[in-house]
Amino acid sequence: MIVIKVGGGEGVDTELVCQDVAALAKQGEQVVLVHGGSYETNVVSEKLGHPPRFVTSISGHSSRYTDRETLEIFVMVTAGKINKLLVERLQQLGVNAVGLSGIDGRLLEGRRKPALRIREDGRTKILHDEYSGVIEQVNTGVLTALMGAGFVPVIAPQAISYESVALNVDGDRAAAAIAAALGAETLVILTNVPGLLRDVADETSLIREIPQAQANDYLERYAEGRMKRKVLGATEALRDGVGRVILADGRVEQPILAALAGQGTVIK
Amino acid sequence: MIVIKVGGGEGVDTELVCQDVAALAKQGEQVVLVHGGSYETNVVSEKLGHPPRFVTSISGHSSRYTDRETLEIFVMVTAGKINKLLVERLQQLGVNAVGLSGIDGRLLEGRRKPALRIREDGRTKILHDEYSGVIEQVNTGVLTALMGAGFVPVIAPQAISYESVALNVDGDRAAAAIAAALGAETLVILTNVPGLLRDVADETSLIREIPQAQANDYLERYAEGRMKRKVLGATEALRDGVGRVILADGRVEQPILAALAGQGTVIK
Repeated sequence: MIVIKVGGGEGVDTELVCQDVAALAKQGEQVVLVHGGSYETNVVSEKLGHPPRFVTSISGHSSRYTDRETLEIFVMVTAGKINKLLVERLQQLGVNAVGLSGIDGRLLEGRRKPALRIREDGRTKILHDEYSGVIEQVNTGVLTALMGAGFVPVIAPQAISYESVALNVDGDRAAAAIAAALGAETLVILTNVPGLLRDVADETSLIREIPQAQANDYLERYAEGRMKRKVLGATEALRDGVGRVILADGRVEQPILAALAGQGTVIK
Repeated sequence: MIVIKVGGGEGVDTELVCQDVAALAKQGEQVVLVHGGSYETNVVSEKLGHPPRFVTSISGHSSRYTDRETLEIFVMVTAGKINKLLVERLQQLGVNAVGLSGIDGRLLEGRRKPALRIREDGRTKILHDEYSGVIEQVNTGVLTALMGAGFVPVIAPQAISYESVALNVDGDRAAAAIAAALGAETLVILTNVPGLLRDVADETSLIREIPQAQANDYLERYAEGRMKRKVLGATEALRDGVGRVILADGRVEQPILAALAGQGTVIK
């Protein structure tokens, strides 16, 4: 079994991703596709007059502020538009795909983040209506029911809290949690760079292989920005039993097949 | 088994609908919930600068023009926002709901409408990019897999064409097709009127019962506007084996339980 995470960032070619998913499915491989969508959510949020807002916590950490309206736009764009158009394209390629959000069947369950304590204009404020969280449990029932009947799941990055509140979650860590819960052999995380780079400004500085034991060192030394969460997801997946994680380029021809052939950063 | 259609129009109280679904599920009843969403889709379309467009065919029939952008907004709002927020609310009420669109697993399959021939400004025009259709086949595999595992399906009104193109479809007829394919005993169609009225201006003129054989006569004589498609859906469901169809008021307390107790227009 292969779990594939395709980012929502600019540059990643979802058409090529779908073609590879179809090729793998035709070979009899069980594939699970997890996707993001923050880029397109930002575009729609702007158009709807509710632009994304980033805040700085009292400890100096910057993060997106997901109020209820933002959460609902996230759900609309990722679990609606992106998810169903991926399902449509996969169906055109002969893959009997079914789209889900992590809310469905409580697939991804976790803890809602507490109120945010932020610094703004030199003052401390508390934001209570934060709708994001951290996955702590994967309830695989809905996936095993669908996969047992021959369907290919396509999953949008939401979770549900223990109190049944829908939450925005990180797509990379969602894919890692699903891969671990399903006991997947391989997790492929596609992004718009060739993998983990020694020098973010130089795409030829790709780190080809990382032994699992050293993943945290590499995370500290080389991962910046969004890549941090990808490497963090990778270490979580390996810790929980996934065979290998490949951070690979989603912009190239046959992005998944190339990753499986070893192109990208292989962590195992 | 009971299939329930809840409209997306103003006035229908989805909170009360969810409470009744939870009550039925707790009694061990197998429930399938089908929803609409054209009202909210229109609101979002306006905000996104792509307002709904209605055209008049050369035969004088008025209909919504669903170009690709409109279809994508429909998918986003109905299969994304409305569907997942219903799932969230049902989960809060203890129902293990899973949301789907008719695209998923090819659940609702059918024929794409041909190009529209319209009259506009006194001239005939042909609109080729119409993304709506008519359901001809229900592939129940995805539903039986989920229901067999104990989940309650919540379904958004899209279908997929034989060429695997996503299509907007009428929610009432989608519910009717699903009820027939699953061999449901009862189909409840909730709307923002008490049922079929002899006089649309008088809510006390409710028609309490229609024998199946006379459904077409009642359709011709009393149904106007959107009610036409509800009665049409009802006749299709009865023809295909559903025991009874109840057109009922979605604005009252316990709307589904009241309908099952005979309030509304019962067609059987």
